[in-house]
Amino acid sequence: MGTEENGNGRLEGGVTNHEAAIEEEEEEEEMEEMSQLSHRRKKGKKETTEEGREEEETVPIEKVFEGKEVPPWREQLTFRALAVAAFLAIMFSFIVMKLGLTTGIVPSLNIAAGLLGFFFVRLWTKALQMTGCLQKPFTRQENTVIQTCVVAASGIAFSGGFGSYLFGMSGRIAGQATEDNDAQNIKDPRLGWIIGFLFVVSFLGLFSLVPLRKIMIIDYKLIYPSGTATAFLINGFHTPQGAKLAKKQVRTLGKFFTFSFLWGFFQWFYSSNDQCGFQVFPSLGLQAYKNTFYFNFSAAYVGVGMICPYIVNISVLLGAILSWGIMWPLIGKKEGSWYPPGLGLGDLHGLQGYRVAIRDYCNLSLKPVLKFMFSSILQVFIAIALILGDGLYNFIKVLSRVIFSFISMARSKGSRSTLPISDDDRPTAATPPISFDDRRRTEFFIKDQIPKRIAFGGYVAIAAISIATLPHIFPQLKWYFVLLAYIFAPVLAFCNAYGCGLTDWSLASAYGKLAIFLFGAWAGASNGGVIAGLAACGVMMSIVSTASDLMQDFKTGYLTLASPRSMFVSQIIGTAMGCVIAPCVFWLFYKAFDDLGLSGSEYPAPYASIYRGIAILGVDGFSSLPKHCLTFCYVFFAAAILINLGRDFSGKKVARFIPLPMAMAIPFYIGAYFCIDMCVGSLILFVWETVNKAQADAFAPAVASGLICGDGIWTLPQSVLAIAKVKPPICMKFLSRQVNDKVDAFISATLS
Amino acid sequence: MGTEENGNGRLEGGVTNHEAAIEEEEEEEEMEEMSQLSHRRKKGKKETTEEGREEEETVPIEKVFEGKEVPPWREQLTFRALAVAAFLAIMFSFIVMKLGLTTGIVPSLNIAAGLLGFFFVRLWTKALQMTGCLQKPFTRQENTVIQTCVVAASGIAFSGGFGSYLFGMSGRIAGQATEDNDAQNIKDPRLGWIIGFLFVVSFLGLFSLVPLRKIMIIDYKLIYPSGTATAFLINGFHTPQGAKLAKKQVRTLGKFFTFSFLWGFFQWFYSSNDQCGFQVFPSLGLQAYKNTFYFNFSAAYVGVGMICPYIVNISVLLGAILSWGIMWPLIGKKEGSWYPPGLGLGDLHGLQGYRVAIRDYCNLSLKPVLKFMFSSILQVFIAIALILGDGLYNFIKVLSRVIFSFISMARSKGSRSTLPISDDDRPTAATPPISFDDRRRTEFFIKDQIPKRIAFGGYVAIAAISIATLPHIFPQLKWYFVLLAYIFAPVLAFCNAYGCGLTDWSLASAYGKLAIFLFGAWAGASNGGVIAGLAACGVMMSIVSTASDLMQDFKTGYLTLASPRSMFVSQIIGTAMGCVIAPCVFWLFYKAFDDLGLSGSEYPAPYASIYRGIAILGVDGFSSLPKHCLTFCYVFFAAAILINLGRDFSGKKVARFIPLPMAMAIPFYIGAYFCIDMCVGSLILFVWETVNKAQADAFAPAVASGLICGDGIWTLPQSVLAIAKVKPPICMKFLSRQVNDKVDAFISATLS
Repeated sequence: MGTEENGNGRLEGGVTNHEAAIEEEEEEEEMEEMSQLSHRRKKGKKETTEEGREEEETVPIEKVFEGKEVPPWREQLTFRALAVAAFLAIMFSFIVMKLGLTTGIVPSLNIAAGLLGFFFVRLWTKALQMTGCLQKPFTRQENTVIQTCVVAASGIAFSGGFGSYLFGMSGRIAGQATEDNDAQNIKDPRLGWIIGFLFVVSFLGLFSLVPLRKIMIIDYKLIYPSGTATAFLINGFHTPQGAKLAKKQVRTLGKFFTFSFLWGFFQWFYSSNDQCGFQVFPSLGLQAYKNTFYFNFSAAYVGVGMICPYIVNISVLLGAILSWGIMWPLIGKKEGSWYPPGLGLGDLHGLQGYRVAIRDYCNLSLKPVLKFMFSSILQVFIAIALILGDGLYNFIKVLSRVIFSFISMARSKGSRSTLPISDDDRPTAATPPISFDDRRRTEFFIKDQIPKRIAFGGYVAIAAISIATLPHIFPQLKWYFVLLAYIFAPVLAFCNAYGCGLTDWSLASAYGKLAIFLFGAWAGASNGGVIAGLAACGVMMSIVSTASDLMQDFKTGYLTLASPRSMFVSQIIGTAMGCVIAPCVFWLFYKAFDDLGLSGSEYPAPYASIYRGIAILGVDGFSSLPKHCLTFCYVFFAAAILINLGRDFSGKKVARFIPLPMAMAIPFYIGAYFCIDMCVGSLILFVWETVNKAQADAFAPAVASGLICGDGIWTLPQSVLAIAKVKPPICMKFLSRQVNDKVDAFISATLS
Repeated sequence: MGTEENGNGRLEGGVTNHEAAIEEEEEEEEMEEMSQLSHRRKKGKKETTEEGREEEETVPIEKVFEGKEVPPWREQLTFRALAVAAFLAIMFSFIVMKLGLTTGIVPSLNIAAGLLGFFFVRLWTKALQMTGCLQKPFTRQENTVIQTCVVAASGIAFSGGFGSYLFGMSGRIAGQATEDNDAQNIKDPRLGWIIGFLFVVSFLGLFSLVPLRKIMIIDYKLIYPSGTATAFLINGFHTPQGAKLAKKQVRTLGKFFTFSFLWGFFQWFYSSNDQCGFQVFPSLGLQAYKNTFYFNFSAAYVGVGMICPYIVNISVLLGAILSWGIMWPLIGKKEGSWYPPGLGLGDLHGLQGYRVAIRDYCNLSLKPVLKFMFSSILQVFIAIALILGDGLYNFIKVLSRVIFSFISMARSKGSRSTLPISDDDRPTAATPPISFDDRRRTEFFIKDQIPKRIAFGGYVAIAAISIATLPHIFPQLKWYFVLLAYIFAPVLAFCNAYGCGLTDWSLASAYGKLAIFLFGAWAGASNGGVIAGLAACGVMMSIVSTASDLMQDFKTGYLTLASPRSMFVSQIIGTAMGCVIAPCVFWLFYKAFDDLGLSGSEYPAPYASIYRGIAILGVDGFSSLPKHCLTFCYVFFAAAILINLGRDFSGKKVARFIPLPMAMAIPFYIGAYFCIDMCVGSLILFVWETVNKAQADAFAPAVASGLICGDGIWTLPQSVLAIAKVKPPICMKFLSRQVNDKVDAFISATLS
């Protein structure tokens, strides 16, 4: 669903029931207000069975699957699963790499991974059945394992930065700018060091958040819309033949899946470039469009809006109004006084802004790009200040509770050596699983544990290796830079996974840019600050990107009863695969195309220049930031903490209406358009619930998943078309009447 | 709904159940296959009451109204009704006139007349109630009377040709061309002769078809979609307060009405000129668009498609494929050999083609317009040949049956002087009204008769006056021209009313153009053939346009139990109003704007030039027709008759699948786009009926009426906006990728 982009956020999946997250203590009552997924189903059941009809529709999904045995975690990791995953990983790596090097816009492929994983294993089993071999049945857990392995492997092709930070180090990119292109600030790609680099940085993300998975999935009930939708899809595929009970839901999913897919296909015809088609439909007028306020007819975001709790939708909308509606336009007026004149902030549309900048400036010197970056950097700084405020608050809250419960438990139970190490995996009295689905899912989610010592030990060990190795790869990157990065990384990983769980957007690239700027400024231009910044970006992006992917997959696993242990092992295998596959695929491109990375060529790798540009800005230090940028950061950081304090210490009734700073921050960086889409989804759900609550409860998740998955799968043929250079034939263009009159005159004068 | 246009067809309302029409004898069985309106309701009722639920939804609409007394016909014609009608007639005449003189595109206002009539009378009664006066209750019959009076009056502003044939006679229009602008071929407008002319030609249409109303409405069961939708709207307004039974249908109507209205409003923003917006959406690709094959997102046409029987939709689609898909592109290749080179046939889009021609050529000499007209004239000739073949066949069939039954009745019953004169208004044994609704409606429809001697006598008397008067107004128009026109007019009026009943399109302008050509050719340029042709066009257009309006209104009256007699009187009053109002309004414009009619001015009256152009072509005689044009006409005329013979003499099972030539002919002239819309409506209905037959039967007419009415009412604010010169702010443009690249380069070069 959506797109992930080297330059901007990466839409991935996830929304919490924040109510539950924040007010866990008052859960029994709070639960009644939640629109969280499994909860909905339970409520739907309760209501409709009381009425004595539609009983079949609302049976818990896990009742349907009760007859199907869940294999132990080792059996979920089959050879065929890993073989199919490897095949898909290579295929997806090619897609991601090619798109990253051409347009820089990379779709998120986790839904496609789920779908294709299913079909390939089916093919495999069918083929072997024909030869008469006995086959283990193909389970949804195995399906999930394939999906998570493919996501982990192909994720490296994105987080490895081959189209952004890593390639931005190369002399070829540096040669296109006049600044900082001395030997010290250049490191050309070589297969050896890239694989080494990836191996030492890519596993950190996996280990950093594993201990928090129970908190995020079960306690915070983060939704991860894409992960949830993928799970719905996989459950739909594996619904037992005999069970007619869940059929209606699956059929609904199928219908909306088809609709969403065909809608994506239809839209494609009218988008001959990225300024054409429904995705730039100025549905609220041209003025609103300039400030990124428009409904862009994305079925996926509408689905995300339907799956997210209302408070998340309201929060993102508030954030959009605050940033793109008020702040950016006002700051835009300060052009020339707060930041160098050239490009107004108000005219930049998040994703679009970048593309305009690339298209307009890539053939010129880097300076105009730098100018443009002021606005982008301001957005990154403010968004991350807000996110950090919220994230740190919650991280510390979680940490203190974990430590407190650990201490109190240690005190009360003494030194029982048989005590399971990961206590927080146990359901506590405060969070009783209520519905049948929840109970069964929680049971399987905590059955196979990943010992805390492995998680912590792994993290420390890999960090140590990393700290020792990285300065050898990049002499400009001092060991204490890496150490510092690894101390703060878990917090940022938590923030990103949390934000992704709320709104489906992973802001890995924003954290990466922050790292470029901070570490670049610290090192300084004379000490190879450009390379230091870009390398730090790699360290940071790998961690935060992997962390949110991982948590997204854990959500899918939770909903398909896949063992966390098999998921974790699968992710490790997938990451290892990716660390080899991605550099090799890149190396193929690099060797095959001599002009790779040169603007105007077939593979201009546009974001490589952009990332290097940020690094060049960074080495000038904080003085290069727009005026008052840091002041804004302090204010928003403080505001995030204050809002959280407000939520925790105000009465329940008030707290429900206080927005979530994390969700508010996303549009600061991305733009307002996806908020409009989400709010449309929210509105549809609201109207549906008003008209027929029971029906909405039973079918809304299926509809939302169908919308998300259909759009998600469409990205696959879309990518193939883009790679095959099949361009859409038509441009649906939106012009103001005045401009249109001129264009009409031009067309009739020159083209007829 | 839709638009009526001086240059092209006029979408008005009406579809038949052709099955019933053609195979009346086998009605009992045939009825089972019909998807005709009242029938649907009956079936819906039967099925659902058997199931014992949803009974309330499907009670016949007339059961709901049973408690409401239907006032005698004289009381339906109240003073307040006529006062409101006069007020609306003046308002609508201004709208029609202004639009006709600026863009030439005039919306059909009969739905708006129904709605505004309701609100103004409500206002009137409320105001008088507050003063304490006793008021007669406002009935739906009165509402229908207002609507029909307004339509009759404002129809004159269209059929009077102030923006087309009548103004095309003027020296001002003639002066813009180099051909045939001698005194003999010019007649400048004067208030006196215009009013006189209108009075002698406008009433003929009313009298010509009155005797056939029972055959068209009750026997042929023609649908007249707009008329049916208006009746639905009026019935909805007047649904008794206490009756909860019909509420659901009214609510459905209201919902889709609102949707359709808002959709029209939304579309408006993106159509800053007529080559922008959803109405030119190349939804099937650019190549198909060039041949007018595209879904143009018109809610009204989709509604028409839902209300029409499948065979009509299939027929129009077949006609579209045959003409715009095959014939026109093939003939287009004969450019230069069959007709002068310059403009290919394949590139002309019916409505659009005209506009392109106007926009591109109005500022040049008339010659290029003439060139363009070849294609249009070919379309007119072939379409009318097909229509005439079908129409004549049916006309003769009807006539022979009427005569036969008259003879056999006269023979069997002798010379009873008390015998009602209009026997055909009685239900015969062959056509028993089956449902409650049908029975009650038929009862009221035949209760108040319009004696045949009045109809025939009126027609002959007015024709005689007309034949005597017209040559005095236009010396170029010989009395035998008029006589001949009046002999053939009833057939053409029948054809037009029949076609309009089938597909909602009135092709008055096509008949008018045919008359221009034929009579112009007959008179010849040296005998003032241009004026003769244009005047003959007026005679013809007035008759055929009024006839279809009248029959459309009779359908509305039939469905609202309005007395045909009060309707007829109301139409006569309305026509008389129009004959005074329309010329006066035109005179105001003509006196107020000195440059009225000059191209480039505020009121260019584009179709005045076009009509004059056709007349100039016509006076050159048949030699100016494209090669083989007449051959095509013979072939299609014969084909229409053969198809009808095939329908009548093949078995029932085969006949059901034989298309209707009348319906096939409409797209020949109009273009294929509305067929796509109608087929989408048809498809929606088909799927709906497959999924839930009872629900579809009960609600499809309400949905269709809502869609038609919402769009129809939107034309009112749209017209007001156009008159107030408020133009849409945005152009949604569709360009091929190649053109778009050039346009993008142009925009960034000159506008940024």
